[in-house]
Amino acid sequence: MATITFFMLRGSDIMGSGQLLEMMRRRRTVRDYLPDPVNGEALQRILKTTTLAPSGADTLPYTFVVVTNDETKRRIREEAETVESDHPHSECDDLQKLFRETEIPTEKAFLTQAPVLIVVAGDTSKPYWLESTWIAIAYIILAIENEGLASLTYTPPKTEFLNSILEIPSEFAPQAIVPVGHARGKSTPKDSRPEGKIYHEKYG
Amino acid sequence: MATITFFMLRGSDIMGSGQLLEMMRRRRTVRDYLPDPVNGEALQRILKTTTLAPSGADTLPYTFVVVTNDETKRRIREEAETVESDHPHSECDDLQKLFRETEIPTEKAFLTQAPVLIVVAGDTSKPYWLESTWIAIAYIILAIENEGLASLTYTPPKTEFLNSILEIPSEFAPQAIVPVGHARGKSTPKDSRPEGKIYHEKYG
Repeated sequence: MATITFFMLRGSDIMGSGQLLEMMRRRRTVRDYLPDPVNGEALQRILKTTTLAPSGADTLPYTFVVVTNDETKRRIREEAETVESDHPHSECDDLQKLFRETEIPTEKAFLTQAPVLIVVAGDTSKPYWLESTWIAIAYIILAIENEGLASLTYTPPKTEFLNSILEIPSEFAPQAIVPVGHARGKSTPKDSRPEGKIYHEKYG
Repeated sequence: MATITFFMLRGSDIMGSGQLLEMMRRRRTVRDYLPDPVNGEALQRILKTTTLAPSGADTLPYTFVVVTNDETKRRIREEAETVESDHPHSECDDLQKLFRETEIPTEKAFLTQAPVLIVVAGDTSKPYWLESTWIAIAYIILAIENEGLASLTYTPPKTEFLNSILEIPSEFAPQAIVPVGHARGKSTPKDSRPEGKIYHEKYG
């Protein structure tokens, strides 16, 4: 018991400096989910992190809609697959090429497979809304990993259908659908790839 | 000794589910730094996390320039304070009002006080470069907190001067200057503010 108490005190005080790095390495984009439900307390802890990220002038310029209803998930998937085939990121040929190269399928089965979808929308009336929304998304995906759950950040090429299905006011621009669930299969941890990305004192 | 070994094994294996949340609560925006240097190994661990965040089509659309040179920091501060007074986020009256209300000073002493500045720029030629860059920034500020160090994300109203001083090519758009250092004084942990931000099944 003394040992456990010591760990709990030490653990709640500060994480080992390598632990966060290891968690960031473990977190991978997951597109294949088991039907197993997400623990309600884990989901609550994940949602608590949403508003802890810094935001422009501290305005919290975002909203989160948690979807678990099967019919709603089915409609979201249907509309997402429609916009994917109608507008395959058509404004950007490079992106299409990249998606083909990285073998990202246009079928979005994860939108109905995962038991929970968190739809994240930014409040476009606020300063730095896009930047702030994506910092918050980073917090969420790390919190999901920290619960032993899997996620990805999926941005459809058009997102107005999310406003419509979820009754999100038009000043909010949906930025990502973040499925939450148990990964089918195991991913290998990521390696850091700092080559050509980090410079000292000046670029190059 | 057995106790410590137990903690280290348990600790490196998985974080307690509350630990990440506590770390996110502790991380505050810090504008006042001690002159104490940043440990080199800690900085290396922080920089390792920069490329672990997911990015659009896995293109890592960003670059990081680590600045420790006093003269370079002095020039960055001088230019930042000039653009702050010349272009005080003038395109957005609301932002000016918010900055006044939240008492954000236009003097940017932290740019010379903090021993290290990480300048983060997004590669505008890549898809989802802005979103991806801000996810990466979130990873960095958490990694900084995890080392017991402090930071903030500072975005000047104009950023071209950073391209010029740091010789960053023009296709990269500087997004933030992230000072890294030891906080002067102690901040109280943040509270989660989910009220009006999180909805279930649909907005409202």
